[in-house]
Parts: sequence; structure tokens; C-alpha cells
Amino acid sequence: MVDSKKYFMRIAYDGTRYSGWQIQPNSTSIQGLIENALQTVLKIPIRIIGAGRTDAGVHALGQVAHFSYEGSLNCHQIGYALNGLLPYDIRVKELFPTLTSFHAQYSALSKEYHYHLWLEKIVDPFVRLYRHHLYDKRFSLTLLQEATFHFLGTHDFATFANVGGSVSTTVRTLKRLDLVEQEGGIRLEFEGDGFLYKMVRNLVGTLLEIATGRRSASEISLLLAAKDRRKAGPAVSPRGLFLIKINYPARFEKSSGNEDTCINDLPVSCES
Amino acid sequence: MVDSKKYFMRIAYDGTRYSGWQIQPNSTSIQGLIENALQTVLKIPIRIIGAGRTDAGVHALGQVAHFSYEGSLNCHQIGYALNGLLPYDIRVKELFPTLTSFHAQYSALSKEYHYHLWLEKIVDPFVRLYRHHLYDKRFSLTLLQEATFHFLGTHDFATFANVGGSVSTTVRTLKRLDLVEQEGGIRLEFEGDGFLYKMVRNLVGTLLEIATGRRSASEISLLLAAKDRRKAGPAVSPRGLFLIKINYPARFEKSSGNEDTCINDLPVSCES
Repeated sequence: MVDSKKYFMRIAYDGTRYSGWQIQPNSTSIQGLIENALQTVLKIPIRIIGAGRTDAGVHALGQVAHFSYEGSLNCHQIGYALNGLLPYDIRVKELFPTLTSFHAQYSALSKEYHYHLWLEKIVDPFVRLYRHHLYDKRFSLTLLQEATFHFLGTHDFATFANVGGSVSTTVRTLKRLDLVEQEGGIRLEFEGDGFLYKMVRNLVGTLLEIATGRRSASEISLLLAAKDRRKAGPAVSPRGLFLIKINYPARFEKSSGNEDTCINDLPVSCES
Repeated sequence: MVDSKKYFMRIAYDGTRYSGWQIQPNSTSIQGLIENALQTVLKIPIRIIGAGRTDAGVHALGQVAHFSYEGSLNCHQIGYALNGLLPYDIRVKELFPTLTSFHAQYSALSKEYHYHLWLEKIVDPFVRLYRHHLYDKRFSLTLLQEATFHFLGTHDFATFANVGGSVSTTVRTLKRLDLVEQEGGIRLEFEGDGFLYKMVRNLVGTLLEIATGRRSASEISLLLAAKDRRKAGPAVSPRGLFLIKINYPARFEKSSGNEDTCINDLPVSCES
């Protein structure tokens, strides 16, 4: 049997035009485009496994995927070729061999998402695809800040999970939920051991109800206890959501030491 | 004869999808879309005059236009309605009455343009439409900086003007040409009393030839003296170019004092 090697790929994409990460019939997915590009380059079908499935319209700065291949690859050349084949709103940022025990989803220690809000009246046209717009005189940063503390820690987040995920438990640990001010508004920075289907957008939806006085922060413990998606607020739009980073044990991120086949700085022009 | 009033409009747009500012047959221009929106709102055809004609693909943060209208407008409502009719990549940022002597083009004291360069290997997918990509190991910021000084001041810029403009003189004063480092590269900030057709992109094209050692800065005075477009380097792509600001005497920017009809903070949602 031929020894199969594993490769670590870090990807950024503007999700606006796509049906999401995951391959689906009759739609254009990011996974599908990368697999097609890999097949073109490597001449055999390649299945890639992503760290998480981002929904239609959700963006990524640091999505991670792995794939197996029987043999050594010149990652520099392969990365070059992939970015040449992929549209400019999907970029392979890093590609390198990793340990065979690596799995993009199961090896993850934590994931980080940012949710961007535009809070002024007129949205800057250059970020229109990357911000959720909320202009509401009732909006209170203090109320929002207070509400975030109720979600921190380990909870059963079933109330904030849409059906569609296949998980054995809906208990997750939210390690960090920070508010950071930025041009035109704020971003919410989430870090957790894992996130259920639509969990970040559902949490933000309820947080914004609280921030605008339509719901009280004291309800959060009741909402969590209810374990009923229908009790919480609606999900906010995908355009504000970015998958920022997947954290792994350091041993997977290191290269195998071969400089020729370990390139994390791919030289690809964007000029059309 | 009815007294005709003049209105000052400040506009931001992502030029990616458009044929440019100016109305042209069989193409979608920013001027044309705004005039159509004004006609829908005001029920009569309105001609708007822009401060400058940005080319296809060029962006604006602070384009200015004026129009005349016989009567008073509630600028708050009109601005609201215009942004409701316009696509999200064009936003009316300010609308207010100004002096009847105002002319968006002829009253301008100076104009400011920025040109954005991405100098790393892989272009961030979220700014792919707003950066010119140059990845060249020969690139020298020192050479670029030195070259900029040769263009400062009053010169005949005929060598850097494409045919197509209708101007009486090709002499212009470049008041400022600064290099500012930013994520992924640099931007060149231009301020001048006026710019000839494609002048900024032509200047940047030649500056990049010098920055990468393909041409010497000492040639610039010869290039200017030649007054021959064919002697200089090619224009760089429009995607990196932003019309930032048009500067006018303060009297035109002030409102006429009527708070009800002077709104520069239009409340329009971007959410689709």
C-alpha cells in the first residue's frame, strides 16, 4: 500500500457569490471549486475536508481544510496553480504537508468568528457586502456589552442552533465574546471550542434585540434553559460574518521541514 | 421667471460595475443612474454636473455634483428617496442647497486622488477590486519616493494625458504627492488644482517603472518636456484609483441655514 500524505490548506474567501463552503447539488460552493482546481492540477479526484461549513454569503479569512494524497507535492507550485485556477474571491493562502493524524475539523482546539455591524445611517459602499446594517436610535453599547457576559462559558446552546447540523451534543464553551469599536460601528469577536449550525448569527440576532431594548438580558438564562430555537431572536444576515481563525495544536501547523514543499507565502497575482 | 436654486451633492461609489461617471450610450454610468433617480423623485428631468469624470472602474469616496431646481427641496427626504432608488454601490452622502454661483467643476480649488497598491504575493480577496497588484522583487520604495519629487509643482503634463479630454491647457499644479504605507502595500496620495484625462493612472504607471528599475527618475524632466504621451509608461488599472475629495471655498459647503432642507447625514439602510 502506498503511503498517503496529508496536506494542510488555509483559505480566504469572499462568500458573497457562493452557496457556502459545502458541496451541494446545483450550486457553486467553495469546497467544490477548490476540489475541481485540485483535480485539474493533480489529475485525480481529491476530497477536501473543511474545519467548518460556512453558510451561503459567509466570509472567511482563515478557513482550514485538509486532503490526503499518495505522494509528495511541490506545495509552492501547487498553490500557485490553484490560485491561478480559482476566482479572485477565493485564495489559497497557505499549503503545506502536515502529520497524517491531522483532521481539519476534529483536530481543532477552538474557532474564532467576527461579526461586523455598521451602526451609522449610510453604509460605506466599499464594505456593503461585509457589514450587517443596523441603524436604530435605541441601540445601546452598554446593554449589548452586559448581555454578552450571559453567554460566556459552557452552556447548552440548543436554543441558538438551527436544525441541519448533525451533532451528538449541543453543549459548547464560549471562551471569549468581545466588542471592538471600528469604523462605522463595532465587531463582535467570538471564540469557542465549537459552534452549532447558525449559532453565531442566532446569538447576534438575540444580542441585537437586547441592545435595542426589545428584550432583556435577564431573559438569556431562560432562553438557554428552554432549548427551543423558536424562543430566541432571528438570525442576522450572513454578510457580517467572518470565519477568522481555527486554532490547532502547534505540531500540525509546523511544516515537515522540507523547504521545497512547504510554502506558506504563495506568489499569485490578482491582476486581471 | 422662477428663481432656480442650486443643490450640492456629495457621492460615494464603487466603480467596479460601471462604465464611469459620465453618461454614455449603451452603458451604465453613475451620472445616468443618479439622474434617473432624481427624475423619479422630482418628476422632471434633472441634469447633474459632476466635479470630474471618473473612468470605468474608478471609485469615489467624495465625488461632488450640482444641479439646479426651481424651488425648495426637503433634502432629507430627497436624499432618503435617492438612496432608496440607487444600488448599494452608489450612495448619496450629502445633499444641501448651495449658492447659485456654485459649479461642481469650475468652483473647485483642488482635487485629491488616492492610488492603492498591493505589493504582497497574495491579494486579500476583500480588497481585490480596490487595489492594483504589483509583486516584483525589484520594487523599491526609496526609488519611488525619489521619483515623486520630480512631478511636484507646476508642469505641462501633456505626456501624461490621454487624448479625449477637452482642455485649453495641459499645465497643472501638483501640490502634493505622498506615499503612505498601509496593509498589504502603499497608497499614493495626489492633490492638485486639476488632473488631465487619465493623468493619475499614467503618472502611477511611470512611477512604477521607476520603482522597479525599468526607468530612471532622471528621465522625468525629459518626459515632461517631450509632451508626447507615447514616451511615458502605460496607465495602471482603474481598480486602484479613488477620487477622495474635491475642495471648494467654504461658502459653497455651508448650508443656507435652513436646517429642514440641509441634511448631510442621510438615514438609509443598506440591508437587503
